[in-house]
Amino acid sequence: MTDTTARLLINCPDAPGIVSAVSSFLYNHGANITDLDQHATAPEGGTYFMRMEFQTGNLRLSREHLEQAFQDAVATRYAMKWHISYAAERKKVGILVSKYDHAMMELLWRWSRGSLPCDIVAVVSNHEDLRADVENFGVPFHVVPVTAATKAEAEARIEELLAGVDLIVLARYMQILSPEFTARWPHRIINIHHSFLPAFVGANPYQQAYDKGVKLIGATAHYVTADLDQGPIIEQDVERVSHRDEVPTLREMGQDVERQVLARAVRWHLEDRVLVHGNKTIVFA
Amino acid sequence: MTDTTARLLINCPDAPGIVSAVSSFLYNHGANITDLDQHATAPEGGTYFMRMEFQTGNLRLSREHLEQAFQDAVATRYAMKWHISYAAERKKVGILVSKYDHAMMELLWRWSRGSLPCDIVAVVSNHEDLRADVENFGVPFHVVPVTAATKAEAEARIEELLAGVDLIVLARYMQILSPEFTARWPHRIINIHHSFLPAFVGANPYQQAYDKGVKLIGATAHYVTADLDQGPIIEQDVERVSHRDEVPTLREMGQDVERQVLARAVRWHLEDRVLVHGNKTIVFA
Amino acid sequence: MTDTTARLLINCPDAPGIVSAVSSFLYNHGANITDLDQHATAPEGGTYFMRMEFQTGNLRLSREHLEQAFQDAVATRYAMKWHISYAAERKKVGILVSKYDHAMMELLWRWSRGSLPCDIVAVVSNHEDLRADVENFGVPFHVVPVTAATKAEAEARIEELLAGVDLIVLARYMQILSPEFTARWPHRIINIHHSFLPAFVGANPYQQAYDKGVKLIGATAHYVTADLDQGPIIEQDVERVSHRDEVPTLREMGQDVERQVLARAVRWHLEDRVLVHGNKTIVFA
Amino acid sequence: MTDTTARLLINCPDAPGIVSAVSSFLYNHGANITDLDQHATAPEGGTYFMRMEFQTGNLRLSREHLEQAFQDAVATRYAMKWHISYAAERKKVGILVSKYDHAMMELLWRWSRGSLPCDIVAVVSNHEDLRADVENFGVPFHVVPVTAATKAEAEARIEELLAGVDLIVLARYMQILSPEFTARWPHRIINIHHSFLPAFVGANPYQQAYDKGVKLIGATAHYVTADLDQGPIIEQDVERVSHRDEVPTLREMGQDVERQVLARAVRWHLEDRVLVHGNKTIVFA
Repeated sequence: MTDTTARLLINCPDAPGIVSAVSSFLYNHGANITDLDQHATAPEGGTYFMRMEFQTGNLRLSREHLEQAFQDAVATRYAMKWHISYAAERKKVGILVSKYDHAMMELLWRWSRGSLPCDIVAVVSNHEDLRADVENFGVPFHVVPVTAATKAEAEARIEELLAGVDLIVLARYMQILSPEFTARWPHRIINIHHSFLPAFVGANPYQQAYDKGVKLIGATAHYVTADLDQGPIIEQDVERVSHRDEVPTLREMGQDVERQVLARAVRWHLEDRVLVHGNKTIVFA
Repeated sequence: MTDTTARLLINCPDAPGIVSAVSSFLYNHGANITDLDQHATAPEGGTYFMRMEFQTGNLRLSREHLEQAFQDAVATRYAMKWHISYAAERKKVGILVSKYDHAMMELLWRWSRGSLPCDIVAVVSNHEDLRADVENFGVPFHVVPVTAATKAEAEARIEELLAGVDLIVLARYMQILSPEFTARWPHRIINIHHSFLPAFVGANPYQQAYDKGVKLIGATAHYVTADLDQGPIIEQDVERVSHRDEVPTLREMGQDVERQVLARAVRWHLEDRVLVHGNKTIVFA
Repeated sequence: MTDTTARLLINCPDAPGIVSAVSSFLYNHGANITDLDQHATAPEGGTYFMRMEFQTGNLRLSREHLEQAFQDAVATRYAMKWHISYAAERKKVGILVSKYDHAMMELLWRWSRGSLPCDIVAVVSNHEDLRADVENFGVPFHVVPVTAATKAEAEARIEELLAGVDLIVLARYMQILSPEFTARWPHRIINIHHSFLPAFVGANPYQQAYDKGVKLIGATAHYVTADLDQGPIIEQDVERVSHRDEVPTLREMGQDVERQVLARAVRWHLEDRVLVHGNKTIVFA
Repeated sequence: MTDTTARLLINCPDAPGIVSAVSSFLYNHGANITDLDQHATAPEGGTYFMRMEFQTGNLRLSREHLEQAFQDAVATRYAMKWHISYAAERKKVGILVSKYDHAMMELLWRWSRGSLPCDIVAVVSNHEDLRADVENFGVPFHVVPVTAATKAEAEARIEELLAGVDLIVLARYMQILSPEFTARWPHRIINIHHSFLPAFVGANPYQQAYDKGVKLIGATAHYVTADLDQGPIIEQDVERVSHRDEVPTLREMGQDVERQVLARAVRWHLEDRVLVHGNKTIVFA
């Protein structure tokens, strides 16, 4: 991926000729297509999704003119919802966290090594604990305490601190966001849940997994909706456990899975690889 | 594993000195210990489980005298529940199946190649479909139709056909056994459920998994209790899937997982590696 | 996949405009594109590979005219090597096997259940052992003994028996094919090697793995070339093992991996998902 | 694991009665056995390995007297090599590193969170690059440059800096240690190799893996011997890759595997779970 990379994301009613129309348009305007994924949700009459990666180095139009031309020449005809993102414009990310550090640290670490193409603009926590860890990376750290009485106010403060970000990552943030908050950030909040959803929704999934005696524990990264732990799943993975593993061990093993799963989900989101269809995702990974 | 292999299974209240008492007893009577696993369910005051594999070639007592001596010298003192099984006495297995053949075929195939140390005495189905497949292996095949009205009668007939077996395997048997039936076979019926339990209990888990958009599908082998799909889990595994995979593909991929998971669970049961504690298993694999 | 499915496979020097040219051609002739994968071996100046799946139900030309038109209108311009295969024309497959049955049985079984879209026309072995297993499936079984002295003659006989097949699968065939033989079937012979290549080439890889003390054992499906165990790799997988596992156990565990890996590789080949570039494969799975 | 935990490690010629002798000895002296693993390298006449974890809270003898009594009462009789380690005496660890930070950071991070039961006494590098990363954790950082001419001197300096450590971890240290150095630290140097050994020994394994077109890349943690990349393997794992993944991507994906594999191997070593037999390990994990 280079700074001349752009990505066109499309969804529209399925119809013949879309690939031809889109690829011809891009070719005719000097774009070089370097990756292409498509998915139709049904053999006929479904929704069509496309992600096309192209290089802008030889574009014959400005971005604005290209986008206008695409709307006029292609998008209108197929009733497309579409969006072009440009790799040169790095996405802005804010992180919410409580006291567990592992998920946040994995993101900061990968980001600091250039593996996550974004700007992490701030970390906000309802606790003071992780300040030094965050500031070590040169990232601003803000504490916004939350109580039942101050929840609305706290959320307003959070949104103020994260104004303008493209993505909010809940890296084990132990507060439930209000429906009003989540509604304002559709498909732009990623949460890491410490179980293989839909098993073990809600609190303390490692205890639940232990009580149930499962032989694999997992983690799930998903977009946040008003429906707790029920938003579209982006990525999941599991690790094998045994009867020897008590809850603290499950938690420690699970945290390794959480780190990997969240990092993959965030990277895919940043690379515009995750499209949402109803309550499910299409991941062009 | 040879014909001189025996396995002593123990559970009792945890206490110091058990390993010493049991291993000294066996050694003093000429048994050579070749494998040993133990597990205590809590640091203190829990239940203690042990599996000790030993060779009987140089035993100085008959089985009957050895077992009586063990009861008198060791078991009574520690309030043990215990059992010795002898590899030379192959376990008898009956299989219940409906129309899906994959799980049953995997068992028959491994059995015919010597990988499952048991005698498969009969396959019983509520449908005629798989007769040729079963009889090809030289195994008797019986059809016992089941309707709501004839369920009790059908179950009586099944138990008659499988009289004397040590284990019943539900290899995708699509009937729910009555609580009375399951109560008579505690920890002696293994079912393969086509999902990663506790996610997707009940009917059509592949459709449920598809609707939910999970990124991994799984299978679970568990002992059957009166509580549908809730018995102690023996083994689980998963396979990665994507948005491209429709329900028929999930089913086909899932069947590969079912085959592997069921075969492992049955083998472990036959080798006396699965102990049950409450609603969980201890698997000395 | 239905009987109206066709697949266009292309490789050519990379250049701008290929997607546009191909998709427009197909669209203009009534083909509905249902899947599309592409890969360029380098950012610039590499080789471009494409697999396009389309539905032929509304084609406005006969196959012959469509293919001629494609050559004239598109392929010549981009110096393409290309091929269209039609799902309605099932590929013909021959299997070579020796005494181990597991890999062959997995193929026959999946094929008999409709999971492998092909016709298995014959199984040829250098031993008599598996005749009943094969004939049970209604597939002709031929024995062609091989000795150092009769190798050329034996290979000629094998090619006579398998005349006209599209693919030869070596399902643990323990003879080394001559360079002349393999040269006549480029990218049309698939072998299953019982190790994670390039580790443990040659004979008895499970013994080699045991001696080395590896913690994972694997299997590799690859196209056969004159260079033993060095042909393009199609698929690989591994299973975790431990110090407890002796060579017979490794073999048994490994055979499960071999079955899965070979079945996947053969299915992908049958669905035209495997393209070869030098000594590597591109798998559009 | 608590501060009263001790571990008895034994290897000796296999013989009947060892479990009985050892467990009776410990029981009679007030030790409570909380874990027990054993392995015999052959059915008869092999070497016997045991790891017994016990609690020292009620020991009736001092450590010195217990160990002397064990030698006299048990070890001599069975010609045992044995060792008791006490969890209260944390092992001392030194890390060697060059410029890649991921493996070292994973260790420092887990250690700082209490997941690695050891004292990390120093990090030594042949480059200055990682000083801030290390010192952030409060760990001393030393630079010891190495050239062909100064190798002996550099190694002497390294051993001076790491005097008294129980374990040296090569966390992607890009210098080859001399045979003299490795001979002084038998089974006490762990290296992380960035491939699934024995595939791709030597330099640049990700390039080798790319050139070969493997479908899985791996990492191997092993004890270092004079024979480069050939020491006893402790742990391995792999990750699935595809034709799309260029060398930099393989490297990045591989680094995630390296981190996990090295962390597991080091933890097992610290918990005395790794025993060496010839060029192979027994891992009581």
